[in-house]
Amino acid sequence: MTLEITRRQVDAANEVALARMLAVQPVWVGVAPLGELFPELPRLALTHAGPPVTWRRMSGAQRGAVIAAVLHEGWAKTPAAATRLAQDGRLTLVPNHDLGGVAPMAGVLSPSMQVFVVEDRASGRRAYSSIEYDSLFGCYDEGALEEIRTWNDVFYPALRRALGAVGSLDLNQLMAQALMMGDELHSRQTAASALLLRRLAPALVRENPRPEAAATLDELAGNELTFLPLAMAAAKLIASAADAVPLSTLVTAMSRNGTEFGIRTSGTGPAWFTAPAPAVQGVYFPGYGPDDAGLDVGDSAITETVGLGAFAMAAAPGIAGLIGRTHRELLAGSAEMSKITAGRNPALAVPQWDFAGAMLGIDIRRVVQTAVLPIIDTATAHREPGHRIIGAGVSRAPAACFIQALEAWFSMNLTDESTVPAAAGWAS
Amino acid sequence: MTLEITRRQVDAANEVALARMLAVQPVWVGVAPLGELFPELPRLALTHAGPPVTWRRMSGAQRGAVIAAVLHEGWAKTPAAATRLAQDGRLTLVPNHDLGGVAPMAGVLSPSMQVFVVEDRASGRRAYSSIEYDSLFGCYDEGALEEIRTWNDVFYPALRRALGAVGSLDLNQLMAQALMMGDELHSRQTAASALLLRRLAPALVRENPRPEAAATLDELAGNELTFLPLAMAAAKLIASAADAVPLSTLVTAMSRNGTEFGIRTSGTGPAWFTAPAPAVQGVYFPGYGPDDAGLDVGDSAITETVGLGAFAMAAAPGIAGLIGRTHRELLAGSAEMSKITAGRNPALAVPQWDFAGAMLGIDIRRVVQTAVLPIIDTATAHREPGHRIIGAGVSRAPAACFIQALEAWFSMNLTDESTVPAAAGWAS
Repeated sequence: MTLEITRRQVDAANEVALARMLAVQPVWVGVAPLGELFPELPRLALTHAGPPVTWRRMSGAQRGAVIAAVLHEGWAKTPAAATRLAQDGRLTLVPNHDLGGVAPMAGVLSPSMQVFVVEDRASGRRAYSSIEYDSLFGCYDEGALEEIRTWNDVFYPALRRALGAVGSLDLNQLMAQALMMGDELHSRQTAASALLLRRLAPALVRENPRPEAAATLDELAGNELTFLPLAMAAAKLIASAADAVPLSTLVTAMSRNGTEFGIRTSGTGPAWFTAPAPAVQGVYFPGYGPDDAGLDVGDSAITETVGLGAFAMAAAPGIAGLIGRTHRELLAGSAEMSKITAGRNPALAVPQWDFAGAMLGIDIRRVVQTAVLPIIDTATAHREPGHRIIGAGVSRAPAACFIQALEAWFSMNLTDESTVPAAAGWAS
Repeated sequence: MTLEITRRQVDAANEVALARMLAVQPVWVGVAPLGELFPELPRLALTHAGPPVTWRRMSGAQRGAVIAAVLHEGWAKTPAAATRLAQDGRLTLVPNHDLGGVAPMAGVLSPSMQVFVVEDRASGRRAYSSIEYDSLFGCYDEGALEEIRTWNDVFYPALRRALGAVGSLDLNQLMAQALMMGDELHSRQTAASALLLRRLAPALVRENPRPEAAATLDELAGNELTFLPLAMAAAKLIASAADAVPLSTLVTAMSRNGTEFGIRTSGTGPAWFTAPAPAVQGVYFPGYGPDDAGLDVGDSAITETVGLGAFAMAAAPGIAGLIGRTHRELLAGSAEMSKITAGRNPALAVPQWDFAGAMLGIDIRRVVQTAVLPIIDTATAHREPGHRIIGAGVSRAPAACFIQALEAWFSMNLTDESTVPAAAGWAS
């Protein structure tokens, strides 16, 4: 059998995948405990960021986050007891992506933890995400547990009541405004978070007792990443809209568990293509350095998967210091990503590109052909459990993920592999 | 007598003027009725934007704003009666700049109107400014009067109570953040206004009854120019710090009354150097066009006087559409202004310039030598009284103002005018 798939057929499949992504209308619709969203989860189940992983292979950040979640749920009373519970294999560990959700850094969430719920108005599909707690960097001290409790008991409920009065919140619209205000919507969410506060403040006041309203506004005023989970959940809905388009070579997820970096593609279904997680290149907070750093971790690379984050770093001149670049290098850095993407998202216009849309649709063919690897804005966790954030910077997705995905694509679609040209060659 | 002032002496004087501007620490400290700040003003006194002007020569926007202010104060019951009061010369018209203040567009304020009070922490000097009411575009219908009353009776008092709890607000810090978030701090104040809301929201809730708090948050959430008066008052304090440095050729004010454009310079004191106000080049709201437009008006060019607004348009890619430029043209537009400015303000860093400071100190020598005229972001008022905003765009300061100022400088500083070279020539 000879090579019978033309480049045009693959391009057409990718156009379908792109069109599905562009049709997504992400809207913030609610707040609910994770366990209420997924009653089918077994007892002692936790979710986590990245491709599947076991306790034995888990990064320090994820181990610490597991300990925090177990303590938060009251499944154990001490970190040592929580560790034993995990070591004994009594926890069920589920990737957030398998539940259609995403969570920052370690991404470890437990049933009682509240999450943001985002819906695609066009399809009714839903995604969830969580505030980036200190626990998601691996910290499990009393302050970290208190942060989870205060969000769970005060801030999330206050936001839910405010949202109830507002109805729902169009996230594409808010993200488009934020791109005009210096956010790239991954590491920098300053404008989006301020716009979220601006939009909710009147309803927060009207729908909550004064102390809860004021405390929640204090938190929103001091937390410049409040919008991160909403951006991530919106990005998850956009990316997953492209799931399972036969022949499509577009990436539908990039994620890391701190040990491995994994990607999924449209045409290859739910399989993860993984490689060792890369290191983060960037800056460290005082007292920390490269020797302390864990490897790249978090579901938040879902923002880059849909052309935000580092793919839109041109929109965020204020991020230059955080990732050690000049303004010109920011413009060049995101321009480089246009070599590996298939389209644009006009709903998320970047003013620095005279309002051309954010890039959309990472094509594994182009990644392999050009050897341009997706760049990701990210925060840095400690390599050991028990720490808060230690730095920030950028990472590059490993080439091996894309090569494996392309090999799998060939295996699926070309029955006689002997006729398959080198990965860079395509019939046309 | 021969030419005895060297370029070095003038440069040194300008360094003194620059140093004084850089020493200013603008802080929002209060809210008060204008008449309480200036008890010495006669009865029936109104302030206005720009250099001195009479009712007879006033632009439509200013005439309309005068009518609105007279009606607001209850000095007349009808627009016709208000007009007669003005025609009969019974009103005292005072430029805001003569009181150390500034106000947007027509700039017409009356004694009972509340204003923001900003203080230079370094010197104790104060400046005031006002919300950009529809009345300041010349509108005097019931909606316009209601807007003034609601601000006076609800929003200003609620903000005053919140500020009382917060203490004071460092405006350089907030403006620096806004420059990282796409504001140029004249026509675009979206980020600064959101940051202001973010900063005040908790105290607004704690210090006010719930309805007033919620109503004020509604207003702040819907008004993207709330910060304009604070930026203007801060700019006025910075610019006026350079007043009266002998030999200095730096501009200390640029302002327009809708009929004339006027400038003041450090070395020539309080004299205004005026020329006919320019037209605004830009876009019009539906139903309006160039034939409807009044000439350039407002004290808000004080922001360009200190290197904000159009001088910092590179910081505000989102403004491109409003003024009909590409992103590249925005970068070039502000870069052009570096030809006529003497220094930089590191407290107001522009991320697009890799955090070099906003330009500071327009030098009339350079304006005349290079023929590069200061560019100003601005809104457009109707040429007749009675209208709201009709458009937005940019204007250029008239060359004649700078030539006159330079001639006056020569007359003051060189006793034998026959030895004065052409304006472009300087001893060195």
